[in-house]
Amino acid sequence: MAGAGPEIERLIALLAKLPGLGQRSARRAALALLKRREQLLLPLTAAMQDAADKVTTCRVCGSLSTQDPCAICSDPARDRAMICVVEEDSALWAMERVGAFSGRYHVLGGLLSALDGVRPEDLRMEGLIERIKAGGISEIIMALPATVEGQTTAHYIADRLKYHDNSVTISHLARGVPVGGDLDWLDDGTIAHAFKSRR
Amino acid sequence: MAGAGPEIERLIALLAKLPGLGQRSARRAALALLKRREQLLLPLTAAMQDAADKVTTCRVCGSLSTQDPCAICSDPARDRAMICVVEEDSALWAMERVGAFSGRYHVLGGLLSALDGVRPEDLRMEGLIERIKAGGISEIIMALPATVEGQTTAHYIADRLKYHDNSVTISHLARGVPVGGDLDWLDDGTIAHAFKSRR
Repeated sequence: MAGAGPEIERLIALLAKLPGLGQRSARRAALALLKRREQLLLPLTAAMQDAADKVTTCRVCGSLSTQDPCAICSDPARDRAMICVVEEDSALWAMERVGAFSGRYHVLGGLLSALDGVRPEDLRMEGLIERIKAGGISEIIMALPATVEGQTTAHYIADRLKYHDNSVTISHLARGVPVGGDLDWLDDGTIAHAFKSRR
Repeated sequence: MAGAGPEIERLIALLAKLPGLGQRSARRAALALLKRREQLLLPLTAAMQDAADKVTTCRVCGSLSTQDPCAICSDPARDRAMICVVEEDSALWAMERVGAFSGRYHVLGGLLSALDGVRPEDLRMEGLIERIKAGGISEIIMALPATVEGQTTAHYIADRLKYHDNSVTISHLARGVPVGGDLDWLDDGTIAHAFKSRR
């Protein structure tokens, strides 16, 4: 790539660090950016600069937002008695797209993992406990992944809460066959779980 | 995504325009950028701004470069008698990675296509003819895709050259079985071609 110069090589190397992009797709992305300078490169650069300048972490729930507290935490119409605990902002975004939940969130920023050495103090765990201790919470909804780490994290939170307040209900997202899902494509664990929880 | 704000939504919408990224992978990419602000978001924003400021199109060969003429066109060590014709910069980059070619390039910026309405004047075709007319060229290497459009484009160039200069040799990249390629994975056309061209 002698002709392209170090600027383009650097652009490709950084694009390749995005999840889902390898070397080849990073080169394609760089070429698309450079060929569509006005329609793509300049607007995306501006959007990234804007995000870097304005996006912060909500001091209440830990979500990424341009407001602090975030729009959800500062919305008086949202139910303050319910907290939905999620691993990452992507799960919060998914819940908000569905629009089925009218309470507030808590973004842990990860899951407990003995294997990866993730401890409670590495997550936004104390913030969650403080929010519950402060009172007025009637239900904690664990919207955590159905993995060992997800379940360990949910257990840990439930355990911690027992010492503080027994009046808080802890619920979990139901497990089962996805809507429109074919049994043939599902793993055995999900099918077994869906069968046990049949109604 | 009420909580995330319009800045993040705009970032996701623009990332989704990159080739190979859909809505879901654009959200993952946006999250990775926002979570890795110092290591990824700021350096990538700077690299994109840098590319937008400095990258231009070489007036000789049409390649993307931070110099004009580009580093290859202005390198006295490169053979001025050979021009390798490519569709896009990605093909030039691939040839340069291999390092087998020591001549210069011509980036057409596309291929002739009756279906998509791409005419010679939509490509950097006249620039190529002018370069050849100027003399001193002994070989034109067509490194164009083995598609109808690629072959149509190569034919068109060969036709145009007949009227100008019969001393220029026109060659094509060899077609055949890729190195390390399993016959089972190849299309029939390639196998038939490789068989006919056996040596």
